[in-house]
Amino acid sequence: MTGANVRKACREGALTGPTPGLALGFVQANLVMLPRDWAFDFLLFCRRNAKPCPLLDVTDPGDPEPKAVAPGADLRTDLPAYRVWQHGELVAQPTDVREFWRDDLVSFLIGCSFTFENALLEAGVPVRHIEENVNVPMYRTNIACHPAGRFHGPMVVSMRPMTASQYVTATNICARLPLAHGAPIHHGDPAAIGIADVARPDFGDAVTVRPGEQPVFWACGVTPQAALMAARPPFAITHKPGHMFLTDLRDSDLCTG
Amino acid sequence: MTGANVRKACREGALTGPTPGLALGFVQANLVMLPRDWAFDFLLFCRRNAKPCPLLDVTDPGDPEPKAVAPGADLRTDLPAYRVWQHGELVAQPTDVREFWRDDLVSFLIGCSFTFENALLEAGVPVRHIEENVNVPMYRTNIACHPAGRFHGPMVVSMRPMTASQYVTATNICARLPLAHGAPIHHGDPAAIGIADVARPDFGDAVTVRPGEQPVFWACGVTPQAALMAARPPFAITHKPGHMFLTDLRDSDLCTG
Repeated sequence: MTGANVRKACREGALTGPTPGLALGFVQANLVMLPRDWAFDFLLFCRRNAKPCPLLDVTDPGDPEPKAVAPGADLRTDLPAYRVWQHGELVAQPTDVREFWRDDLVSFLIGCSFTFENALLEAGVPVRHIEENVNVPMYRTNIACHPAGRFHGPMVVSMRPMTASQYVTATNICARLPLAHGAPIHHGDPAAIGIADVARPDFGDAVTVRPGEQPVFWACGVTPQAALMAARPPFAITHKPGHMFLTDLRDSDLCTG
Repeated sequence: MTGANVRKACREGALTGPTPGLALGFVQANLVMLPRDWAFDFLLFCRRNAKPCPLLDVTDPGDPEPKAVAPGADLRTDLPAYRVWQHGELVAQPTDVREFWRDDLVSFLIGCSFTFENALLEAGVPVRHIEENVNVPMYRTNIACHPAGRFHGPMVVSMRPMTASQYVTATNICARLPLAHGAPIHHGDPAAIGIADVARPDFGDAVTVRPGEQPVFWACGVTPQAALMAARPPFAITHKPGHMFLTDLRDSDLCTG
C-alpha cells in the first residue's frame, strides 16, 4: 500500500475509517482548511509554533491540490472523513467535502506523530498506547503558544512513557524529525508543565507508566486544532481525528540528519 | 558594537549609511513591509522558496516590533534608510518611515548573506567582492521560483569564486545556515542555470575569477525583492540596499549543526 493507494480508496468511497497503520512508511498529515481571510493568521501561528504545528504544505486559495506533498491529489475527496465547522460548532462529518468547497479556502497540511512513532518502533523504543491499543494520551500544558492574530492558546502535548535510556534514543531520533514535532519538549515531572495527573489526560486515553519509566512529552498536533476551535472562525474544515491525509512523502524524507 | 547599538544609532539619526561590517557577529536582515492583504501571498512565497527567502521574523499586522529577533526594536525607525514603493515605483527614500506607517502593515525580516560570508572568512574561504571592495555580483537564473498567489519570478543568485577545495568547506559551513540561504545551489558552468556571462552580473559588480577557481552560486535575498517589484503591490516599504536591520541574533544562533 502506498499513500496514493489510500487516497484512491478514500476518493472511491472504499475507505472511510481511521488511517493509523495504513501505507506504513508514508507520511500522514493533519488537515485544516480556512478561508483566505483567516489563512494569514493561521500560517503565522504555525510558523511561530513550529513544534506543535509543523507545516508540510500550504495551498493557494481555492486550490485543492497539495502540490508539494501529493501532486495530483484532491484534498476535497482524498481523506476518509472530515469535520465541517461553523463558528466553532461541528455541523457535519462527511466523507467528501466537495459540497462544502469554497474558492477562498486555503488548506494546511500539518505533520503528525505517526511518523516518529514508526521510527521509535523500528529503534525498539516502546509506544505504549499502540501496545495497549488505545488513543495516545494528550494534555493541555501551562506553556503558552506564541499568539498570532486571532489564534492563541496553550500547547497541547502527547505522552509516551519510557526508560531513561529509551528517552535518549527517542530524543536522538525525533530531533531529526522537525516536521513530525521534533524532539520531546519535556520529560519527568508533569507538574513542571502544568499537568496535574498523567493518569487523567485531557484528550485520548490513559496508558500504563511502568516502574522505572518516566513520562516523555511531545508537542502535539491537537494544539493548532484547539487554537482553531477557540478562535471560532465562521467556517473551517478539518480531518476527522485519526482519519488523516496520506502524502507521497516517505518517513525518511522528513529526516534532517 | 551590538545589534542594539546600531539600531539606537539609526533611531537617533546618527547612522544613515550602509551596515556591512557593523556589529560583526550579529545577524543582519532584509526588510519587506506589505499591507495585510498582500501578506499571505508573500508569506507563502517565502515559505515555498526558503533558500532565497529565509524568514527570520514576521510581525502581526500593525505591529512594528520584531518580537522574535529584536524585542523592543521599532522597524519604523531602527534601520539606517528605507525605500517606499507605490505600485512598484520608488516614491521616497527616507531614514525613518513613521510618516508612511499604516496599521495594516506586516513586516518580514529575511536572512542575508553577510551571516555566511562572516563564517566563510573565519574558515579562510575568500570572499572576492569583499577583497575587491565592490558589491557582490548577482544574476537572474532560469530557475523559476515556486509561485504563490501574485508573487512569482526567477531565482536570483549571488556568486563567489573559489577553488574546488574551498567549495567543499563553503558547502559544509553554509549547509548548516539554512536561515542565511543555506548551501550553494550551483557551482561551475554558469550556463547550466541560465547565466550567459559571469563577467556581466544583472545586479552588483563583476569580480575577478582567478585560474583554478570556479564560480559558486547561492540563492540570493534579491529574489523576493524582484518578485515584489514585479507584482507591483499598491504599497510597500523595504530597506535601502545595503542598509539592513540589525537583529539581536548572533551568527551562531542560525547554525543548525
